[in-house]
Amino acid sequence: MTDDAAKPRAGLTRRGLIGAGAAGGIALAAGGGFALGRAEASGDPTGEVVAFHGEHQAGITTPAQDRLHFASFDLTTDSVADLRTLLKEWTAASARMTKGEPAGTENGDPYLPPDDTGEAVGLGPADLTITIGFGPSLFDGRFGLASQRPDRLRPIPRLPADELDPKISDGDVCVQACANDPQVAFHAVRNLAKIAQGVAVMRWCQLGFGRTSRTGASQETPRNLMGFKDGTNNILNDDGGALEQFVWVGDEGPEWMRGGSYLVSRRIRMLIEPWDRTFLQEQEQTFGRMKESGAPIGGSEEKDEVDLGAIGPDGNPLIPADAHIRLASPELNGGERILRRGYSFTDGFDVTRGQLDAGLFFICFQRDPHKQFVRIQEKLGADDRLNEYILHTGSALFAVPGGVSEGGYVGQGLV
Amino acid sequence: MTDDAAKPRAGLTRRGLIGAGAAGGIALAAGGGFALGRAEASGDPTGEVVAFHGEHQAGITTPAQDRLHFASFDLTTDSVADLRTLLKEWTAASARMTKGEPAGTENGDPYLPPDDTGEAVGLGPADLTITIGFGPSLFDGRFGLASQRPDRLRPIPRLPADELDPKISDGDVCVQACANDPQVAFHAVRNLAKIAQGVAVMRWCQLGFGRTSRTGASQETPRNLMGFKDGTNNILNDDGGALEQFVWVGDEGPEWMRGGSYLVSRRIRMLIEPWDRTFLQEQEQTFGRMKESGAPIGGSEEKDEVDLGAIGPDGNPLIPADAHIRLASPELNGGERILRRGYSFTDGFDVTRGQLDAGLFFICFQRDPHKQFVRIQEKLGADDRLNEYILHTGSALFAVPGGVSEGGYVGQGLV
Repeated sequence: MTDDAAKPRAGLTRRGLIGAGAAGGIALAAGGGFALGRAEASGDPTGEVVAFHGEHQAGITTPAQDRLHFASFDLTTDSVADLRTLLKEWTAASARMTKGEPAGTENGDPYLPPDDTGEAVGLGPADLTITIGFGPSLFDGRFGLASQRPDRLRPIPRLPADELDPKISDGDVCVQACANDPQVAFHAVRNLAKIAQGVAVMRWCQLGFGRTSRTGASQETPRNLMGFKDGTNNILNDDGGALEQFVWVGDEGPEWMRGGSYLVSRRIRMLIEPWDRTFLQEQEQTFGRMKESGAPIGGSEEKDEVDLGAIGPDGNPLIPADAHIRLASPELNGGERILRRGYSFTDGFDVTRGQLDAGLFFICFQRDPHKQFVRIQEKLGADDRLNEYILHTGSALFAVPGGVSEGGYVGQGLV
Repeated sequence: MTDDAAKPRAGLTRRGLIGAGAAGGIALAAGGGFALGRAEASGDPTGEVVAFHGEHQAGITTPAQDRLHFASFDLTTDSVADLRTLLKEWTAASARMTKGEPAGTENGDPYLPPDDTGEAVGLGPADLTITIGFGPSLFDGRFGLASQRPDRLRPIPRLPADELDPKISDGDVCVQACANDPQVAFHAVRNLAKIAQGVAVMRWCQLGFGRTSRTGASQETPRNLMGFKDGTNNILNDDGGALEQFVWVGDEGPEWMRGGSYLVSRRIRMLIEPWDRTFLQEQEQTFGRMKESGAPIGGSEEKDEVDLGAIGPDGNPLIPADAHIRLASPELNGGERILRRGYSFTDGFDVTRGQLDAGLFFICFQRDPHKQFVRIQEKLGADDRLNEYILHTGSALFAVPGGVSEGGYVGQGLV
């Protein structure tokens, strides 16, 4: 392979390469070329393209895909120009990958590293969404952005029952990749990490193997790893009024956050072994719902209205005072709601505890994380009967800017 | 909920429960009952039932499902009766779960813990297979089985380039759960671990998010996390002659292994960041295949025959002397082949190395692990050009007994 004639031009299509091969003979063999888009590749491509550009970033009200790869990055530069370049490159690569195309356009040169890592060729767009946000630490002064930090992006205070590990909390920038194929979500995060080399390093990441929230009107409510339906009363993507009221940042600004939202992630480990030894009735009273049907206690169908005032024959509330759905309810939280988008995870076996390290990677979006998530979690952390079976081990907050038009880039109004 | 009339009988069907509810009134509400099979539940059940019973255990030649949860257990008892009971209970639960039913039959009693954890209700059978095997350590004398250890189950010797972590290696018993829904595979392992409480504890487990081997004739060849098609020349499930020759234990016995096979697992971490900085040509010469098409160097289509004798214009072999496909080829290994069934994994971000902890959880089946896997890996570990980009961090060997008839249990001929 020292014959320069064997070096195909980058960006050739597969048809082009086959032509060049016929002309150049066997010498092409080792320099194959790698310019195929995922959607064009052989295989069994699946899934639709979710538009990357729009008024809002995708991956917030997009009906929750089945799989997640979430990553948090810290910047290793203090140059705002580097940050701007990174966001431009991430935007371009994200727009390409969500269409089922490779992350970059230079994959055919045998004397260069391919600028797509290749494992998603043939897998189709798989409904991939990539959502990018900025943590409070990005505004700490390194980039001259301190005065631009929205008040709502102030760090989340310590909450009752928190047992957070700083190594899997926080971060300067986040990438939420959701797809219906886990390898497509992994590929997106990996290629964005590759693009970031020299400018940002991954701080932590989390794989989610099953969605736990119903976010689209046509979706079934999935079950979490405690076996309960989760997200029955979530804000749905066809509920425009609730989205405007609780999710999208409006005139309160800043300007670069208009049409954006604030993302809170919580790694909630479930102590599933003690849970699994608990009576069915105790499990149902802990959630306030019935396990099989998902109906609120006192109801018969999953979507029955939750009647917090119902009293049982023994004179006590049917839905216990410390039940999860009571304490998390809008009625007890000044009417506040959040848009949940969580995923089940397992990170293997924890030999220290002798238990599976598994649980819920909780993600929610809201207009004001302090008035919404923090308010609700203060109540849950203090009194939720579920606390006996869970541990919050990671936490992060990110400002997710509004959507991007063709030619623009994420965070353009900020940097 | 002190009213005994509210306690439904265990095992009632959903229709039965609704009837009881109408008679018992509101008091039923908190004791919902939970006796639904996954396949009967509401939701969008998917996937077929793969028969659990048969001549061979399922999950060996079953066309590889998309997702894996593999677990290794150590026994905490030294009673062979306990071991026998565990294998009977695991067999019964496995047969139920692969049909899309709950792990147990007692899920409706509010004053008992449900004997299914519930997170797979509504997900369908999802092609679940559960494959059980025995490690060399099971024959160490605790159970009086020392004289029954097949010679082929002697531990794998230290191999060139091994960097094994004992915490994620070996084990007394293994469970390989494969399914087309990761939550169904997780559910299977979790419920078997729950059944084992007091008798066995999990030692390690591994989630695989994408299959990397073509095992069925109609399957496309998937890509590994290096972006290459993996498993093109695998033994396929319609190649009965090769299966008899290389996979299934025959008359060489022991009797309880007839129709079984030996499973080797290797957790192969890929150093994907240095790999991603490598020229395309170097990547292709490392594998001996072209990245986009999967064709062997010198060929043009994926399934072209690998011509190890082909010489390039510079007088050197087209497929380099240290290329992976050359060193792993039957031609260089006395004609030996193995049935591969590997999965891609990522276990988050390794802050020590500043890299994603990701790679290939390699699984292979064979009739004699020493003559087959060990022989091939001795060559690969010593000379494979791929070694620069991978680390073998975990290893295990298990004897997977032959299949189970209705009424029998896994390992019946042994214990």
